[in-house]
Amino acid sequence: MSADISTNPFADDKLHEECGIFGMWGKPEAAAFVALGLHALQHRGQEAAGIVTFDGQQFHMERREGLVGDQFSAGGPLDKLKGNKAIGHVRYSTTGGSLNRNIQPFFADVASGGIALAHNGNLTNAHALRKRLVRNGSIFYSTSDTECIVHLVATSTAGPIVERLIDALKQVEGAYSLVALTRKKLIGVRDPLGVRPLVIGKVDGCYVLASETCALDIIDAEFVRDVQPGELVVISDEGIESFKPFPPQRPRFCVFEYVYFARPDSIIDGLGVYEVRKAIGAELAREAPVDADMVVPVPDSGVPGALGYAEAAGMPFELGIIRNHYVGRTFIEPSDHIRHLGVKLKHNANRARLKGKRVILVDDSIVRGTTSKKIIKMVRDAGATEVHMRIASPPTTDSCFYGVDTPEKANLLAANYTVAEMCRFIGADSLHFITINGLYRALRQNRRDGTTTRYCDACFTGEYPTSLTDRDSETDNGQLSLLAM
Amino acid sequence: MSADISTNPFADDKLHEECGIFGMWGKPEAAAFVALGLHALQHRGQEAAGIVTFDGQQFHMERREGLVGDQFSAGGPLDKLKGNKAIGHVRYSTTGGSLNRNIQPFFADVASGGIALAHNGNLTNAHALRKRLVRNGSIFYSTSDTECIVHLVATSTAGPIVERLIDALKQVEGAYSLVALTRKKLIGVRDPLGVRPLVIGKVDGCYVLASETCALDIIDAEFVRDVQPGELVVISDEGIESFKPFPPQRPRFCVFEYVYFARPDSIIDGLGVYEVRKAIGAELAREAPVDADMVVPVPDSGVPGALGYAEAAGMPFELGIIRNHYVGRTFIEPSDHIRHLGVKLKHNANRARLKGKRVILVDDSIVRGTTSKKIIKMVRDAGATEVHMRIASPPTTDSCFYGVDTPEKANLLAANYTVAEMCRFIGADSLHFITINGLYRALRQNRRDGTTTRYCDACFTGEYPTSLTDRDSETDNGQLSLLAM
Amino acid sequence: MSADISTNPFADDKLHEECGIFGMWGKPEAAAFVALGLHALQHRGQEAAGIVTFDGQQFHMERREGLVGDQFSAGGPLDKLKGNKAIGHVRYSTTGGSLNRNIQPFFADVASGGIALAHNGNLTNAHALRKRLVRNGSIFYSTSDTECIVHLVATSTAGPIVERLIDALKQVEGAYSLVALTRKKLIGVRDPLGVRPLVIGKVDGCYVLASETCALDIIDAEFVRDVQPGELVVISDEGIESFKPFPPQRPRFCVFEYVYFARPDSIIDGLGVYEVRKAIGAELAREAPVDADMVVPVPDSGVPGALGYAEAAGMPFELGIIRNHYVGRTFIEPSDHIRHLGVKLKHNANRARLKGKRVILVDDSIVRGTTSKKIIKMVRDAGATEVHMRIASPPTTDSCFYGVDTPEKANLLAANYTVAEMCRFIGADSLHFITINGLYRALRQNRRDGTTTRYCDACFTGEYPTSLTDRDSETDNGQLSLLAM
Amino acid sequence: MSADISTNPFADDKLHEECGIFGMWGKPEAAAFVALGLHALQHRGQEAAGIVTFDGQQFHMERREGLVGDQFSAGGPLDKLKGNKAIGHVRYSTTGGSLNRNIQPFFADVASGGIALAHNGNLTNAHALRKRLVRNGSIFYSTSDTECIVHLVATSTAGPIVERLIDALKQVEGAYSLVALTRKKLIGVRDPLGVRPLVIGKVDGCYVLASETCALDIIDAEFVRDVQPGELVVISDEGIESFKPFPPQRPRFCVFEYVYFARPDSIIDGLGVYEVRKAIGAELAREAPVDADMVVPVPDSGVPGALGYAEAAGMPFELGIIRNHYVGRTFIEPSDHIRHLGVKLKHNANRARLKGKRVILVDDSIVRGTTSKKIIKMVRDAGATEVHMRIASPPTTDSCFYGVDTPEKANLLAANYTVAEMCRFIGADSLHFITINGLYRALRQNRRDGTTTRYCDACFTGEYPTSLTDRDSETDNGQLSLLAM
Repeated sequence: MSADISTNPFADDKLHEECGIFGMWGKPEAAAFVALGLHALQHRGQEAAGIVTFDGQQFHMERREGLVGDQFSAGGPLDKLKGNKAIGHVRYSTTGGSLNRNIQPFFADVASGGIALAHNGNLTNAHALRKRLVRNGSIFYSTSDTECIVHLVATSTAGPIVERLIDALKQVEGAYSLVALTRKKLIGVRDPLGVRPLVIGKVDGCYVLASETCALDIIDAEFVRDVQPGELVVISDEGIESFKPFPPQRPRFCVFEYVYFARPDSIIDGLGVYEVRKAIGAELAREAPVDADMVVPVPDSGVPGALGYAEAAGMPFELGIIRNHYVGRTFIEPSDHIRHLGVKLKHNANRARLKGKRVILVDDSIVRGTTSKKIIKMVRDAGATEVHMRIASPPTTDSCFYGVDTPEKANLLAANYTVAEMCRFIGADSLHFITINGLYRALRQNRRDGTTTRYCDACFTGEYPTSLTDRDSETDNGQLSLLAM
Repeated sequence: MSADISTNPFADDKLHEECGIFGMWGKPEAAAFVALGLHALQHRGQEAAGIVTFDGQQFHMERREGLVGDQFSAGGPLDKLKGNKAIGHVRYSTTGGSLNRNIQPFFADVASGGIALAHNGNLTNAHALRKRLVRNGSIFYSTSDTECIVHLVATSTAGPIVERLIDALKQVEGAYSLVALTRKKLIGVRDPLGVRPLVIGKVDGCYVLASETCALDIIDAEFVRDVQPGELVVISDEGIESFKPFPPQRPRFCVFEYVYFARPDSIIDGLGVYEVRKAIGAELAREAPVDADMVVPVPDSGVPGALGYAEAAGMPFELGIIRNHYVGRTFIEPSDHIRHLGVKLKHNANRARLKGKRVILVDDSIVRGTTSKKIIKMVRDAGATEVHMRIASPPTTDSCFYGVDTPEKANLLAANYTVAEMCRFIGADSLHFITINGLYRALRQNRRDGTTTRYCDACFTGEYPTSLTDRDSETDNGQLSLLAM
Repeated sequence: MSADISTNPFADDKLHEECGIFGMWGKPEAAAFVALGLHALQHRGQEAAGIVTFDGQQFHMERREGLVGDQFSAGGPLDKLKGNKAIGHVRYSTTGGSLNRNIQPFFADVASGGIALAHNGNLTNAHALRKRLVRNGSIFYSTSDTECIVHLVATSTAGPIVERLIDALKQVEGAYSLVALTRKKLIGVRDPLGVRPLVIGKVDGCYVLASETCALDIIDAEFVRDVQPGELVVISDEGIESFKPFPPQRPRFCVFEYVYFARPDSIIDGLGVYEVRKAIGAELAREAPVDADMVVPVPDSGVPGALGYAEAAGMPFELGIIRNHYVGRTFIEPSDHIRHLGVKLKHNANRARLKGKRVILVDDSIVRGTTSKKIIKMVRDAGATEVHMRIASPPTTDSCFYGVDTPEKANLLAANYTVAEMCRFIGADSLHFITINGLYRALRQNRRDGTTTRYCDACFTGEYPTSLTDRDSETDNGQLSLLAM
Repeated sequence: MSADISTNPFADDKLHEECGIFGMWGKPEAAAFVALGLHALQHRGQEAAGIVTFDGQQFHMERREGLVGDQFSAGGPLDKLKGNKAIGHVRYSTTGGSLNRNIQPFFADVASGGIALAHNGNLTNAHALRKRLVRNGSIFYSTSDTECIVHLVATSTAGPIVERLIDALKQVEGAYSLVALTRKKLIGVRDPLGVRPLVIGKVDGCYVLASETCALDIIDAEFVRDVQPGELVVISDEGIESFKPFPPQRPRFCVFEYVYFARPDSIIDGLGVYEVRKAIGAELAREAPVDADMVVPVPDSGVPGALGYAEAAGMPFELGIIRNHYVGRTFIEPSDHIRHLGVKLKHNANRARLKGKRVILVDDSIVRGTTSKKIIKMVRDAGATEVHMRIASPPTTDSCFYGVDTPEKANLLAANYTVAEMCRFIGADSLHFITINGLYRALRQNRRDGTTTRYCDACFTGEYPTSLTDRDSETDNGQLSLLAM
């Protein structure tokens, strides 16, 4: 097929969540707890992390490229992050080191005090807002959409800082789960659609906000409840208050959180993520059965789906592909000579098990298809006689504008080819994607109904639940700043 | 139980293989291939890695602390490692940065040319040899036992370098698989017992030596054969030659390589490691059945055993414990306040799945027992009603002197307590270790017979296949050098 | 005397200029030339340096702690600084690494394009301006007074960027020499008093702006003229234009630039700095002659004054004190045990020459007096029989608010003690400071007249030529930001 | 002239001493004192420094590239260097980072204990020794000649360590001043010719060894005496003992130590270095007077000679060339475009002073002549009407083999051209080198007599006082090791 489907052997052909957020109010050594929470959310962003604390007098900020566990150790930045109030952020980014001014949280001294802010999601009118703000004299220090919110807060004429934040959020479009820290308050907000998750927990009487419940578990916090779509909660020494400052809308939670982004041990909106994934696998077994010797997951994200498939099909589940745990971020930039080895840096076939066998491979999704192609070849080279691919999500046909790093539509395999063509491209004997209705069944719905669905499934359906102001703008949105970053 | 069973939440309560080795002869960009091979062997040692090449004129050496993928990228040391002959080494070490002179390979200019050497294993008469060598004027630059071999080569009166190496190895006791590189030869050796593995592969007509077959797979090399215990192979432009310079002995391959050290996708001495581990799980199910709702592995090393158990027992296999993939080497040195959270940095209970369930946990081994204790508590806290522990190796009662980092006997739980006491210590409802005969059955033997066994199982039986000269010496072996390292 | 005159052996008891600036228009590899210019201005600030370039499309910015020669080498940041237009800045700062967001130049995207700005001097109403700007929604990212200018430009309602800059500067008080770079212009400005220097040069037809002429010499640029006090020059592809946008005032150039800050090979306002310093030495010889065997400079800043003294007095000039050229920024934080050795890290007595001799020491200034005390003791310990101290500036009695790092008045020796007391404190046999009129004579004036003087000599006289809005403000000016920096 | 006289603008056209050494016995925090001593000896070597201590139980070693003051600060390596006995070394080297295994001191565990050793000088039979040692099984870890001494000690059959050291030194040829540290002794040695300096000092009852007296001054130690040529002193808790183990020879101290290497404030063999340099300047004035307006030193090494010249000639001494104090080791690798600016990184003409003047420039030596050429051009460009060059050493015609980094003879200007040709090459109006007899007069001798001279002046005369075994060997001495370093 087309040669422009480039093959970087190190890309993992996954969509990437762009952020995880965490906040804590009133617990000594708050930054250490935030670091633990961010560590549990590391799957939502591995490129950089930041924490801001307030010690009663001053805010402290440390932002670093790299993993939380490597960067936020005691003796290092944690020692500087004094105070019992803190928020933090982990970030995924495709761009290089010079973008470290994009690492969150952001902080600003505003007229009514200081505010730190961490954002999961993406604004769909950020360019338009930025242009207006610059015209009025705001100076941007990053290329992040999140900075728009900060400037809207700073220039708001509302007095108290919570009012300023609400004022700001009424001007933005798109997806956001936010945590914000002021001198007197910890604030959590989800946009009216509730696209990204945010939960409330409690430990030793102190409130916690986190993207997922797995980040409550790591600090032994109990789960209180999800922040509601369109809800703003204010945590202070007086306890927690709830506000609903936005016009109500039908919620549209990101269905891909269940498919891939969230950790399997998280519980979102009452559903265990692992359970949903196993149920998708079971649906796949029902939708596309095939006679074979074993079900093999593409590790690690394919494991729950493969277990569900094997269980429903009554077939053996086998680790036919072994994952190397030591794949770091940088490896040998290979010469062409050895470039084709790429996939083996991460995965190897379990030759002794696969030889002479008919194999059902289960993976969570196909984006460009390049990794699938290599894995299937590897499995065949190890002696498998048949390879049937089953995918635990519908074909990914459309880009996400709500905080996920998606390739251009031109690079999405499913946007350009039929399933039969894709099957040939990846070299499988058969290929099946879960149907959209199958996916909804795994989520305990009867079927998808576009007029009532409470999920955002735009990456599978193209039905975007918000306007896409920047995308639809005539003007060039390319260059946010004259300063190269 | 005893307070001296200390609890470092970051230790993983595993034995650690101390090394992996790799060599390649005659392929352009040899260092890049060695780096790939070492990456595939990274599970055998994560602390440091080194590569030596020969370019026809000069040897080049780069040795770094850290992971191969992080340290040996192009643009970095690989660019300096010119030549089409290369050997490499990955190393596990318990000590700090100042020991970087212990990173292998070692290199020496000797009378007949240069020699680089990388060693997997451990000599049991290294102290005695070192004393004799120093007395005769050899200057040691490391505290490594491997350096003894290098000095024995340098001071040998045999002429050609292969003869010198044989001369040297005849003086050492213990376990060694070696790769050595001279200007004209790549040499591979296994000690007469063949305690550590070493295999021969071939790619594009070039010979490769590697600790395990998974390191052949990553570079698309075909497996040729295992190096035999007591065999020395010499690879040169003329091809490969085999020597058997030592008196023959009954081989004693390390059985723990099958239990834990080797990668599941490797094939050793004709047996697939994954298959052996599943077979141990099946034996466990037969030896110690229990009525329960599910089999849950302690990830990741418990997975094959748990699969084997579940299959044999006809029970569901479930991911009841989720592993965080982003655990680096350094994390928050926690205050006492949060120290008990330790285990959760790495594992979290899959709460939605475990609640109200009777669980069989499968792990590969118990060393100190501290991690098991925490995991069982975590599983119970998540709502499990019963927790039965099944261990895929016999009780670890004795230290290893052949290249594995084992705690003092005083810190080996099984050396000091009965199974019943251990069960109480870790807080399980029941605990069973595979029997030594069960282990041999999984290896396709009828039972263990100490007079004929071809495995070293000293860590389970205390029957050491070699003399332990240093251990049994009267003199203090503590301080190898007056120089603090 | 008072114990609160603390003794850090590494402080050099000098006042420190806070900045040097440089700009170049239209020359390929402009950043390399700016780096050279900044290297020549390194004496004006050693803590950090920054360069901004414009390549016709984008601005590029690199800012680093450390010396220009160490930080701005090719292969490093220079390679990224593309374009033939550039400005740069060297900075002295007393505070630590976290202040690296204070490193200049500053950059902002403003409505009419981008602007980069580098500032030598200090605003005396920065706090007041900052408060007003924050109240109106500006977000500050540094604690630098210079950032006020940037926000005043961004929020100005004037259209074109030069008009905006003028608009901004009309609101600031204090001292500033500035270079600014926009897409189409290189701008140089001196405040109406012309407190800090700024010169225009030309090389290969390209205009250059620099704090001192020594920075023209290093790139073989010819000196064109000083920028006039209150003048704004605009350099573009069309050439150079001059504006005088401010109400005219009597210039007040900083006299301490002649005494110590400027490099001896620079020529300021027509006077060679080395010549002025020699003339001060000669005045000292006339004002305070003494019978002695030799004149010895405190190296290196006392050398020209000592030469002038020796020549006028007809006495031998001798290197009685040798300076260690390798004094870096960090040395052994000594235990009390060896703390008294401090001064010797930098200077040692030339014992063979001093023994039994009567010595006149010449230094440029005394701030706290601690170094003088140690040097005199060292000279006596080496055998000098008499030590007479001559200082090439009047007593420093008042703090500077115009861009010089001066101790609090309480720590200025001359603000608290008589010359006789100071003489006892430093342990000299006699002590003389040049009189203020002597200083003016060396500058080829008859005498100082406060109503006509064209110099700012506030540090000697307390007569400040501008209002000191922030200093005189009632409110606390301490905490500029709630964010600890 | 010849194009092979290459022009690296950053080379300073000086010969470079290769080492300074320091030792201390019995003082708490000995390493801090050694660091101070090495700082005072930094002019003898700037590339790397190392310190070894003994704490009664163990030796500790820290070796770093860079300046002592930057690398050996408390909180860093000094904290690890426990003990009250210590030796240290500063090193000059022309080669890159991979040679850090050449950083001294060297340490070895030998049969009778540990020994650390630091060496100033150079052996002239190092290749021959190395070959013999390797043949007998010694393994070299550096390319340093000093390591030969260590192996000779290790393989010596003499019992006690002092005897072993004497045994070793009897086999070496060339120049060495050594300090060595064992568990019970601090040893200092000078070779029989005493080519390099070494002095004994005492502070608070503790003995000190140092290359120069300036290193005694910095720690307030009193000068006791020079170590004698051919003397070995042993310092222990019992005091100091002197041995003369070698056959006596006529001493031949390096005369270039007086000319350039030693610090002006040091006193060697009873003569103050500054005094000798002034005396050379005075001789120059007598040997080569010229009518001019001023005497200008090439800073900093030309200053004492220029002062002596000016004083003897009755002419003004002026700082006509200003040195930039911030020249680090790495600067902009210039494009050809700006390469010619090289010299100005370090020096600038004092334009206001030089204009229209006839100038006598005084420098200490000319090696390749490239810097002189640029400086003279710079002085002329600044307006000087005549430039007369006076050099405070005879023409450098021959390489040094005793521890000085000298260019090949083919690159020594004076080895290839007459004085008249050199004068044309550098572009001076006149050029004069001090005569060899003038030099001896400045050293208070009547004249040079080759049969009685107590100085090594081989670089001016080609009369080498030792055999040059390696130089005269037929075999290739190029490649010391097969390992690229």
